[in-house]
Amino acid sequence: MEIRVFAPASVANIGVGYDILGFALESPGDEVVARFSDGKGMSIGQITGTNRLPFSPEKNTATFSAQALLNFLGKSEIGIELDIHKKMPFGSGLGSSAASAVAGVFAVNTLLGNPLTKKELLHFAVLGEQLADGSYHADNVAPSLLGGIILIRENATLDITSLPIPDDLVAAVIYPEVEVLTRDSRNILKPDISLQKCIAQTGNLASFIAGLYRSDYELIGRSLTDHVIEPQRAVLIPHFYEIKNMALKMDALGCSISGAGPSIFALFKGETAAQKGGMAMKNIFEVHGIPATLYTGKINQGGAVVLS
Amino acid sequence: MEIRVFAPASVANIGVGYDILGFALESPGDEVVARFSDGKGMSIGQITGTNRLPFSPEKNTATFSAQALLNFLGKSEIGIELDIHKKMPFGSGLGSSAASAVAGVFAVNTLLGNPLTKKELLHFAVLGEQLADGSYHADNVAPSLLGGIILIRENATLDITSLPIPDDLVAAVIYPEVEVLTRDSRNILKPDISLQKCIAQTGNLASFIAGLYRSDYELIGRSLTDHVIEPQRAVLIPHFYEIKNMALKMDALGCSISGAGPSIFALFKGETAAQKGGMAMKNIFEVHGIPATLYTGKINQGGAVVLS
Repeated sequence: MEIRVFAPASVANIGVGYDILGFALESPGDEVVARFSDGKGMSIGQITGTNRLPFSPEKNTATFSAQALLNFLGKSEIGIELDIHKKMPFGSGLGSSAASAVAGVFAVNTLLGNPLTKKELLHFAVLGEQLADGSYHADNVAPSLLGGIILIRENATLDITSLPIPDDLVAAVIYPEVEVLTRDSRNILKPDISLQKCIAQTGNLASFIAGLYRSDYELIGRSLTDHVIEPQRAVLIPHFYEIKNMALKMDALGCSISGAGPSIFALFKGETAAQKGGMAMKNIFEVHGIPATLYTGKINQGGAVVLS
Repeated sequence: MEIRVFAPASVANIGVGYDILGFALESPGDEVVARFSDGKGMSIGQITGTNRLPFSPEKNTATFSAQALLNFLGKSEIGIELDIHKKMPFGSGLGSSAASAVAGVFAVNTLLGNPLTKKELLHFAVLGEQLADGSYHADNVAPSLLGGIILIRENATLDITSLPIPDDLVAAVIYPEVEVLTRDSRNILKPDISLQKCIAQTGNLASFIAGLYRSDYELIGRSLTDHVIEPQRAVLIPHFYEIKNMALKMDALGCSISGAGPSIFALFKGETAAQKGGMAMKNIFEVHGIPATLYTGKINQGGAVVLS
């Protein structure tokens, strides 16, 4: 018996919710195949799509998180092998390590007959993310696992809330082939912010949440301005403001950096606007000689799914 | 012809929403009587309930804001006299100046046959608040005028959203007779906060908003912890933490400082809990020899109203 699952990429922060908001994309994402093996504990059969992931089970986010699940279930004697098909860019700010961790635990839980609910799997997937990223945080993992737009009140307790998704909300995400190290992206942030910026940011954040509950696209648009993180990180992404200005000119509700970057996301009302706007944004990277990939689609509401 | 109106007290900040959130109380509040007079522009007939408010129309928040309304309407030639009945404590952190400003413009607009909507009056009432307080901010004025729980995305544009009010949400507010100057309360705040505290605060703020939309009292309760302002201002209010701990022991969802203090608010699920909890909180001030007044009630949904 084999189980094949998909876990989607995700956009963390959503501009105004640094470390507390994230949403899942329809595509891209990772696929993981899980099957019982003769060994004991997690092992890796093959990895496709990248040569940057470790084969050692205790260093790979997918097997590490799945092993934590096995241990919790008292099934550490069982042997399970994973094939990992990395079908999304690495170091892109689209939650690549989170998608692998989610796919790993979700595949193993499915193979075992679903002993835990999806929500109960969250902790184990976050452990995998912590292995890759150094901190226990759920802003990519939770949307990748559960789908939707997720608010994390507190990482330590995984106190999360699924936010409503207005019907016509469509995301365009551009991944440019430039390298931004998450480490640099974190180190560039000043440890303090001014109280005045905090007030402006909180007004926008709270109004963004209210806008989602009200399906008020104009309020969402007025709220999607990040006064805190984007101004500090934009320097790491070539042509960021040129692309953002194009997105807004093409009627994006808002546009900012996806996670730690270099990917850029924009939210639109309607598929057509998102596709046109996304193409215009992608085109700017290409005019500057930077290859870029565009993903557009509604917010992924399902999260991780079984493919076969 | 005379018009008598009431404008309620309000609780700004609500712990997690410094400068962006406020709610209106059922009581106390200010009453203002407006009548046409022989003079030109705004004048003051009598002021009761305090000897601390100026009689000069350009220095009194009620007449100043009403005069700005008259000017906007092109009716600066009309003479209108206000009687101001201050029925709430001054310098209490309960929005006293905001209530006066709201009552002034609302009474005059009513006397003139409602040329503007309530929402349109907001700017003029905020001008009155600015006269008293030095800054153009709506976190007391908007709830006093419009009622409910109000979110202010941006003061400059008065971009506000009325938030939903869970049915059983009841406030207890204690006003202790100690003086805290708004100036001191502002000056004690550090100009910067750490990014880590900002993350904790924004997680709570966003979850508080979601909790209101979901009528999720437990989420509201988990979210009502202010990591930024309360720790800095609590030192200005004697016995603050003793009272807060009592509130939480008496099943308050949360408890923090009302506006700039010294009043303390707590939110409860249900009237009975609010009354018992409020009494226990008030009692602590009295044990320490500080006279205190308790107000309990649901969130005021009407805001300013015509009494006769």
